[in-house]
Amino acid sequence: MGNSYGKIFRITTFGESHGAAIGVIIDGCPAGLQIDEGFIQSELSRRKPGQSRITTQRKEDDTLRILSGVFEGVSTGMPIAISIENQDQRSKDYSHIAGSFRPSHADYTYQQKYGVRDYRGGGRSSARETAARVAGGAVAKLLLQKSGISVRAYVSQVGEIKAPSFEELDLSKTEDNIVRCPDAATAEKMIALIEQVRLDRDTIGGIVTCVIDNVPVGLGEPVFDKLHAELGKAMLSINAVKGFEYGSGFEGIRMRGSQHNDAFYKEGDRIRTKTNYSGGIQGGISNGEPIYFNVAFKPVATIMQDQESVDQEGNAVTVSGKGRHDPCVVPRAVPIVESMAALVIADFLLISRVSTVDR
Amino acid sequence: MGNSYGKIFRITTFGESHGAAIGVIIDGCPAGLQIDEGFIQSELSRRKPGQSRITTQRKEDDTLRILSGVFEGVSTGMPIAISIENQDQRSKDYSHIAGSFRPSHADYTYQQKYGVRDYRGGGRSSARETAARVAGGAVAKLLLQKSGISVRAYVSQVGEIKAPSFEELDLSKTEDNIVRCPDAATAEKMIALIEQVRLDRDTIGGIVTCVIDNVPVGLGEPVFDKLHAELGKAMLSINAVKGFEYGSGFEGIRMRGSQHNDAFYKEGDRIRTKTNYSGGIQGGISNGEPIYFNVAFKPVATIMQDQESVDQEGNAVTVSGKGRHDPCVVPRAVPIVESMAALVIADFLLISRVSTVDR
Amino acid sequence: MGNSYGKIFRITTFGESHGAAIGVIIDGCPAGLQIDEGFIQSELSRRKPGQSRITTQRKEDDTLRILSGVFEGVSTGMPIAISIENQDQRSKDYSHIAGSFRPSHADYTYQQKYGVRDYRGGGRSSARETAARVAGGAVAKLLLQKSGISVRAYVSQVGEIKAPSFEELDLSKTEDNIVRCPDAATAEKMIALIEQVRLDRDTIGGIVTCVIDNVPVGLGEPVFDKLHAELGKAMLSINAVKGFEYGSGFEGIRMRGSQHNDAFYKEGDRIRTKTNYSGGIQGGISNGEPIYFNVAFKPVATIMQDQESVDQEGNAVTVSGKGRHDPCVVPRAVPIVESMAALVIADFLLISRVSTVDR
Amino acid sequence: MGNSYGKIFRITTFGESHGAAIGVIIDGCPAGLQIDEGFIQSELSRRKPGQSRITTQRKEDDTLRILSGVFEGVSTGMPIAISIENQDQRSKDYSHIAGSFRPSHADYTYQQKYGVRDYRGGGRSSARETAARVAGGAVAKLLLQKSGISVRAYVSQVGEIKAPSFEELDLSKTEDNIVRCPDAATAEKMIALIEQVRLDRDTIGGIVTCVIDNVPVGLGEPVFDKLHAELGKAMLSINAVKGFEYGSGFEGIRMRGSQHNDAFYKEGDRIRTKTNYSGGIQGGISNGEPIYFNVAFKPVATIMQDQESVDQEGNAVTVSGKGRHDPCVVPRAVPIVESMAALVIADFLLISRVSTVDR
Repeated sequence: MGNSYGKIFRITTFGESHGAAIGVIIDGCPAGLQIDEGFIQSELSRRKPGQSRITTQRKEDDTLRILSGVFEGVSTGMPIAISIENQDQRSKDYSHIAGSFRPSHADYTYQQKYGVRDYRGGGRSSARETAARVAGGAVAKLLLQKSGISVRAYVSQVGEIKAPSFEELDLSKTEDNIVRCPDAATAEKMIALIEQVRLDRDTIGGIVTCVIDNVPVGLGEPVFDKLHAELGKAMLSINAVKGFEYGSGFEGIRMRGSQHNDAFYKEGDRIRTKTNYSGGIQGGISNGEPIYFNVAFKPVATIMQDQESVDQEGNAVTVSGKGRHDPCVVPRAVPIVESMAALVIADFLLISRVSTVDR
Repeated sequence: MGNSYGKIFRITTFGESHGAAIGVIIDGCPAGLQIDEGFIQSELSRRKPGQSRITTQRKEDDTLRILSGVFEGVSTGMPIAISIENQDQRSKDYSHIAGSFRPSHADYTYQQKYGVRDYRGGGRSSARETAARVAGGAVAKLLLQKSGISVRAYVSQVGEIKAPSFEELDLSKTEDNIVRCPDAATAEKMIALIEQVRLDRDTIGGIVTCVIDNVPVGLGEPVFDKLHAELGKAMLSINAVKGFEYGSGFEGIRMRGSQHNDAFYKEGDRIRTKTNYSGGIQGGISNGEPIYFNVAFKPVATIMQDQESVDQEGNAVTVSGKGRHDPCVVPRAVPIVESMAALVIADFLLISRVSTVDR
Repeated sequence: MGNSYGKIFRITTFGESHGAAIGVIIDGCPAGLQIDEGFIQSELSRRKPGQSRITTQRKEDDTLRILSGVFEGVSTGMPIAISIENQDQRSKDYSHIAGSFRPSHADYTYQQKYGVRDYRGGGRSSARETAARVAGGAVAKLLLQKSGISVRAYVSQVGEIKAPSFEELDLSKTEDNIVRCPDAATAEKMIALIEQVRLDRDTIGGIVTCVIDNVPVGLGEPVFDKLHAELGKAMLSINAVKGFEYGSGFEGIRMRGSQHNDAFYKEGDRIRTKTNYSGGIQGGISNGEPIYFNVAFKPVATIMQDQESVDQEGNAVTVSGKGRHDPCVVPRAVPIVESMAALVIADFLLISRVSTVDR
Repeated sequence: MGNSYGKIFRITTFGESHGAAIGVIIDGCPAGLQIDEGFIQSELSRRKPGQSRITTQRKEDDTLRILSGVFEGVSTGMPIAISIENQDQRSKDYSHIAGSFRPSHADYTYQQKYGVRDYRGGGRSSARETAARVAGGAVAKLLLQKSGISVRAYVSQVGEIKAPSFEELDLSKTEDNIVRCPDAATAEKMIALIEQVRLDRDTIGGIVTCVIDNVPVGLGEPVFDKLHAELGKAMLSINAVKGFEYGSGFEGIRMRGSQHNDAFYKEGDRIRTKTNYSGGIQGGISNGEPIYFNVAFKPVATIMQDQESVDQEGNAVTVSGKGRHDPCVVPRAVPIVESMAALVIADFLLISRVSTVDR
């Protein structure tokens, strides 16, 4: 029930914050792909907690173990299972919230829906679940690399602080700072803001922007499975995401058609567009221009403050902020956004092989 | 490939703008539902072209025919097939664009992906396809009505003109004017703007806001199939949509967690939240509060102006605006947004029956 | 719920015996396929009632209408919808069984499952539903023809009368007689038996054997979606089917491994097997040898005799045999078996395009 | 690609014979189910190698580890991941077949399909994969037990030696002997035959019969997902299976309709049938009578003899029988057949919750 993603290149994930392990099965990875385990591990490390002073201090190595589907370093076409043991579980930290509903968390809805829940660290609703996505996304990236497709995300906004537009940035600099904003000056302000928010024992939201280059023309399906619809679902499925827009996005509503339409022209052998308000997607299908989109993250619900709430019987209680948390989720969300985008593109890349009779 | 939507309450649509007919098969509608054919027809009429001076003047009655799945007025559990014959096809209108790519349409991407396309009226990429969604959505609404769930959308923005927030509006007034904005004063301004845009032979974008009331606690799935992720995909799959946000949405990124968290309290027997920045969804699952979201529509690509483009060989051509078009798509998009939302909620309502062992 | 078949080349069917129309949507047919409408019609005619003296005398032309997905005779990659209007509905024939449960029909189970049923002619449980499968299967055959794959079924047994094994038959003679057995002498006996059974106002079972030639190596998936598992499901989903076996089948249980194993050898450039007890499938994947299987059909439940039964309240009633029926279903089942087999092979043919990284 | 089974109660399996581990993710297990780990382990032990003198002597404890989805002994609605480490891998045993194709194994088809294969012990094509199915099936059985449904299989035939029909047997005695035939006298003969076959360094086929009692009326879907079609696919997906029949099966083809039809009558409050040629399923839907079916297994392809074959280049080679093998697979197949049947029934049991509007 909702723990799988993708049609052909399909991941199924499992695991809770404080269970034995989390992991992913990748079914549908084509045979013959070099599986660079070091690369998958490095992607996990970009997501892992405790990587900098502006993230949660939970300690997890997030060491992966490939259980199946790879033989002598190459994918065999069989399901690739990857597990990550949970280490720093500290279940005692959470006993105080066993019977209470933390505001704007999933505690209440899970309890009502299932009648039972693993309250330790939020159980499956914890962002820890996204490590499995990153493992799967890393394999998807390996597949995309063979086609020359790059998927690069970065932090474009924290609170009110915004980076310049992606065309003005050098995306190779994203990893140069801990907030993952490729513009050094903006990054500095973002970091300062996040540190202030942490001191306030509070949290703040932000935007991750993602740019996908070298996508061939023809990915995506015409009606319900439009490329941007699937990207949207993938992004909205990430914890704390509240909005998605691609191309001109919400700004586009203010524009006239005569201004918004992207004129075609020929550049060498390729048909291109002069502007790219379409965000690289027309009629739900990639047109070869860069795909770009924004993902809005709310401020994390876990704050280091006392909050009023109720317990399972509806009695008023005070929920105290304890333990470890991220004052702003977007720096660690960057590899997650990339991973989900890579999964979507990899899936459509394979699906595109069956569009026509002649190949 | 992408012409079906939903897991249990599942629609599959077919049809092109200028083909013989369009239609939908609804598989998974539970048996025993009174199928009010008049209601389905009335929903189709809300979407049909030519309904007012601010929509396209194409003439289509959109008269439905139920082919199967209903016996003596009641659903039998068998697939419900509904067809709508195309009447006003005027194929000649489109011969001028057979070999050219209209800017920001699907002409180019379809041609590249499939090597062939039905260029008449945009073929399957035409918004005419959404009539089939509305027929399916109307049946979903009939199912939701039995549970007391209401799905109501309206136009909240056209260009720069914005309606007040939904809490301040009387949504029963949406159908009182042709732009489908429940605030009369705003509606008047919107209509004036659209008429001006039409005179300019141009188009303009807008926002449709949707509010879903009386959703039981517990709809949606924890990880990839979060309720808002599925709503997002459903909305983004509608022609011309560029963005989706729910609850606090893109505004939420500027907020602090201490401000954004929705405090729980008890009201009578129910646990409720004091604020609703969560938009009725927490951890991907409905919490019983109103669900609300915004859907951004770009300005329609068909404009009554000459535009530079290329043909299939890449030669520069001028594409002339001819025929009939909508200067602003959002008034007619209202029933489409409602339909897709109803389909998502109906599907999760049925899925929620299997969440627990004891029922 | 169960009205779709296939993963990529996917059909969804609708319609009841005495409803307005029946039909199929084919989603996932690749673009660029010549759609020979005459061929589809000829396949429907092979299945239609009233075609000979040993089939039911219900009159249906089964004239197809293509509603979408085909432009200038070629598939466009969009869903292909085909409808067939019901003509000879004679609903009055069935009023006598509205409240009674015919033995070994679906009346009782449908009523219990859904609380409502379209009792006219068995509603959706009627074999009339299979016309939609044949329309879909005909399009699948067109796709297979491009790859040189042939799917040929015939009647190999009626009651105790058996044809020789398929290697000894000339399958091009299947259509030479009304029972569709390529061996003339056997066919004569089968026809005589069926005519006797009809005079006895009774019915009898039989076997349809199917042979698929020129299947490339590599179709089918390793674990749950083995090629023969999917073929088995496809066949068992046909009305009145009670069993499926492929290759050595049930006879294989008596054999020793040393006898049953198919030894590999090289023939020209190809690796082949000396025997073919594997039925062209090893480990769930086609090995290039002919695929063959048997499908067992029970005697049709509709007999022209009085039978004891109960009504919906459980009262004892007598159900009288009236109307029109097939004394033996296998002659008309031949194109249905071929259609379902073609759908399975077409689907796996497309799926096989994504097995490896390099293509 | 084919490593998942089920729609709602859905398993996804992974793992190769000689990889690090095998396992299963169960998605869609309802919350609130007591997960009896000891029971799952006992089911695995019924399948594990080395359990008696007539099975392979490979040593595997098949100790399970639950990684997620269970909290304080109860299912939480989250995916249940179970892993089983491989212990007795002995990869060296298989080096001799790295480049050769064993007759009637999956070596050739895997190599051709994927261009690469894990040849150690057959990789994913090994029957070791079925341990994951048994773990999933055990959880399904726990769910069925709550509804009083029992799934019981036994060995009904080995070579020519047949047990009496299931109505004449006491199925509680199946585990009383190592061949799992509840009739002691027949079991003795079967064991003697298998021991002789082993001495001959050969293998032999057999039949597993399965009986499912107390299935409620209404499981299964009308058209493609008929209950017996899904059971058939589930069985045919098990290694070495060549045929499936339910109810009257292949014998039914010889019968007349007047003889084969199951007359309804009332017994107390229930509507029942006097005979049960339908095998408990009518129109694809359970009718409340016992469901029974036969599954035909070929003789295992691994024999302890020299066989002629070819290598990857097509050169003639001799493949020598080495290592460990089952002379007859059916005793160990009993829990596998039960597991797949339990998975199918559990899935349809949940699906049946959405058949009607009113519940």
